Amino acid sequence: MAQAEFWYEFASSYSYPAAMRVEALAAERGVALVWRPFLLGPLFAGQGWRDSPFNLFPAKGRYMWRDLERICGSLGLPLTRPEPFPQNSLLAARVALALDDALRPAFSRAVYRAEFGQGRPIDAAATLGGLLTEIGVAAELALARAVEDANKAGLKAQTARAIALGLPGAPCLTTADGEVFWGNDRLEPGLDWARAHD
Amino acid sequence: MAQAEFWYEFASSYSYPAAMRVEALAAERGVALVWRPFLLGPLFAGQGWRDSPFNLFPAKGRYMWRDLERICGSLGLPLTRPEPFPQNSLLAARVALALDDALRPAFSRAVYRAEFGQGRPIDAAATLGGLLTEIGVAAELALARAVEDANKAGLKAQTARAIALGLPGAPCLTTADGEVFWGNDRLEPGLDWARAHD
Repeated sequence: MAQAEFWYEFASSYSYPAAMRVEALAAERGVALVWRPFLLGPLFAGQGWRDSPFNLFPAKGRYMWRDLERICGSLGLPLTRPEPFPQNSLLAARVALALDDALRPAFSRAVYRAEFGQGRPIDAAATLGGLLTEIGVAAELALARAVEDANKAGLKAQTARAIALGLPGAPCLTTADGEVFWGNDRLEPGLDWARAHD
Repeated sequence: MAQAEFWYEFASSYSYPAAMRVEALAAERGVALVWRPFLLGPLFAGQGWRDSPFNLFPAKGRYMWRDLERICGSLGLPLTRPEPFPQNSLLAARVALALDDALRPAFSRAVYRAEFGQGRPIDAAATLGGLLTEIGVAAELALARAVEDANKAGLKAQTARAIALGLPGAPCLTTADGEVFWGNDRLEPGLDWARAHD
């Protein structure tokens, strides 16, 4: 079965529609997805940025919010800008990584819905615990696992791999033959590629 | 008839496939296009950049060249990287602006084919003169008009308008109701919007 890895960052705005769309698109094409949460911070730091490029470069930021509004509108997804933007996504990424593979997509979508659908902060353990409970996961255990040293190191390693693969941002799809497709608007060509080059 | 403005920069890599695609896409939708050459330099300078972001941020640059290779491959367009990148596009933009509206698209596509299809430099008057001759335009007259003060000022004004409209880069489509669609991958939604909101 063709495979692709879906790389996403909880603070990333375009990762929201991508996370909501990608599973159905992959299923339509018979592509197995591996969900890979990672952190953009170290990647941006390597480009000399200490903030989101959407904040550093206001014309890009203004464009992105309007573009995202149109995209979410066309998909029927609610959009509420979280304050501050970007959100601190470290704990959410750790929780996502600590979960079983089968639970990661549902938790990740729940985080995006809360953050960009409802505009809720996602940095607090209580918030993430509530989202875990909603999807039927024992929250206290998952939160405890999230902050174990091995899991913290795992997220660092996953982020290092994202950089090594040449990801320029989030979201991305990567394929078994080393291709990178960047952006919510590249999900379809990325999954088509994964299927065609299986 | 619905209208849209197509904003492009001759040094911009993604403007190449966009310029080759946009006329047919607009015709299919019954949207009248106005071709607007402008310069990214002043826009980038406003973001603190003195070079292409694809050179300033190597991960973005590596990604862009591979992405463009895939896009051109899927469209059957030749791709040869011009050296240096970005090309000095000032004279080409002046020539494009000086031409009659009806000649601008053909000249612009000829420039992109030479630059990104064949990897030829586009900064020399002799090169641009050859392209003008190929499309049946009196080259000497067009080149002379290009460097008249009024035309130089016209290009500055057009670039200032691009910045005022909030363009974050090139290529872009703008619609009568003030929407901006950025990127080769936004031609279809931009033209759909122009038609739907006529």
